[in-house]
Amino acid sequence: MSGSGKLALIAGGGGLPVEIATHLRASGRPYIVIRIENLSDAALEAHPGYMLGLGDFLKLFEILSNEQCKAVCMCGYVQRPDFDAMPRDEMGARVLPTIQSAGRGGDDSLLRQLANVITAQGYVIEGAHEAHPGLLIGSGLQAGPDLSPAAMEDAQKALQVAAAIGQLDIGQAVIVAGGVTLAVEAQEGTQAMLRRIPLLNAALRGTVEARKGVLAKLAKPIQDLRLDMPTIGVATVDDVAEAGLCGIVARSHHLLIVDKPAVFARAAEKGVFIYGHDDT
Amino acid sequence: MSGSGKLALIAGGGGLPVEIATHLRASGRPYIVIRIENLSDAALEAHPGYMLGLGDFLKLFEILSNEQCKAVCMCGYVQRPDFDAMPRDEMGARVLPTIQSAGRGGDDSLLRQLANVITAQGYVIEGAHEAHPGLLIGSGLQAGPDLSPAAMEDAQKALQVAAAIGQLDIGQAVIVAGGVTLAVEAQEGTQAMLRRIPLLNAALRGTVEARKGVLAKLAKPIQDLRLDMPTIGVATVDDVAEAGLCGIVARSHHLLIVDKPAVFARAAEKGVFIYGHDDT
Repeated sequence: MSGSGKLALIAGGGGLPVEIATHLRASGRPYIVIRIENLSDAALEAHPGYMLGLGDFLKLFEILSNEQCKAVCMCGYVQRPDFDAMPRDEMGARVLPTIQSAGRGGDDSLLRQLANVITAQGYVIEGAHEAHPGLLIGSGLQAGPDLSPAAMEDAQKALQVAAAIGQLDIGQAVIVAGGVTLAVEAQEGTQAMLRRIPLLNAALRGTVEARKGVLAKLAKPIQDLRLDMPTIGVATVDDVAEAGLCGIVARSHHLLIVDKPAVFARAAEKGVFIYGHDDT
Repeated sequence: MSGSGKLALIAGGGGLPVEIATHLRASGRPYIVIRIENLSDAALEAHPGYMLGLGDFLKLFEILSNEQCKAVCMCGYVQRPDFDAMPRDEMGARVLPTIQSAGRGGDDSLLRQLANVITAQGYVIEGAHEAHPGLLIGSGLQAGPDLSPAAMEDAQKALQVAAAIGQLDIGQAVIVAGGVTLAVEAQEGTQAMLRRIPLLNAALRGTVEARKGVLAKLAKPIQDLRLDMPTIGVATVDDVAEAGLCGIVARSHHLLIVDKPAVFARAAEKGVFIYGHDDT
């Protein structure tokens, strides 16, 4: 579902917020961009909006009210701040301890608490995929070579293992090659997981010359897709290629692809597939 | 259960085979040691036995027959060989391709196939813990400080997650801290998993000064404990200490501890607990 009403885009780092802002401008939907100090891409200065510190909650809600926003979309990369050293206004001083405390349960929990603070003020939380549905992976082969039968088996098993890992609230990515689960992502992130694959026993994994295995990315059931949809970008394709894998699989319409044209071009160039698997 | 009849100890690398051989000599049970070229500890030359290459299957079974062995215990570390380059006798040439092929399913699968070759010749496979029951972890606190309530909660959750990971045939170790699963072991091994903990977000993990979290080691249900019981040694305690964890938990009587006196002394020195959890 696509959003409606004036949208405030709270922009973390990276290219995703720029892509969404550009889409909002092109679509004619009213919006503002809340840039975050030392974090948001400079390209966002070309959009209507404001610059705030991470702890400026009072100012944030003044802006949202004055601008008559209806919805808030938080997107882009945010390194977890040093809460104890973070400057904050009067409202920040009230809400930040609870957010910090929720953060001890992981990033999901931190983001949910932050979203609670925003919805408590009467705003709707909108996912990046609602603000810009074109970011989502489609159904079937998206880019790169066709899947061999072995790669399709690995893709299906990787999705199954990822679903089980997600049920346990562990992480959202796994790598399966030749039916063997090579790696499971917990708190280290997808990139760190991919980078340990070339260190594994050569009998179990592929190489850049002879690719084997598939990365699956799948949201955890507990994860709020409006806050943290699984995401890939050009760097993910590069890391998957370097890890000697055949490709990337996700549930169709459940993965954000940042800069889709560049990602698809890189996948084709490196010979890595990107596949949206339909539920069966 | 403890073994009976003459035992052939096939000795991989490391201190475990030496400890078992020393126990066998002390216990008076008849035994021989099959040392593996370029692999077994030199201390094993002091025991009755033979030196073989990894591919010398015909010689192995001649020795087992001539020596009237009843049981075989495979223990110690074996780096997975380059099967294609491995010298082999006539019988090795027959059985190695199947073992190599099984190895594509992981080390468990390789060891099971190797055990099949041995049992097919009429020998009983005996686990290290059957040859030397004193290696097993006991029940309750074994070494190091008492568990805080938070550490006990992490220990119990880590065992639960490890059991679930094992059901999925992924791996045998996980790390939980403050209720969050920090890392899951798949094919990279326990040491590599421990060494990525200090790279995680500081809000989620402990430090050497302020320890947090527990390593659980638990066999997979598919794992044959006679072939590959979860094992720790002094290096594991060092890695757990460096990772800023509080301790190590396992099912009571289901973890091998190589050089128990040294492991317990190191655990006490570093302030890391070792705990054998009874089934509930």
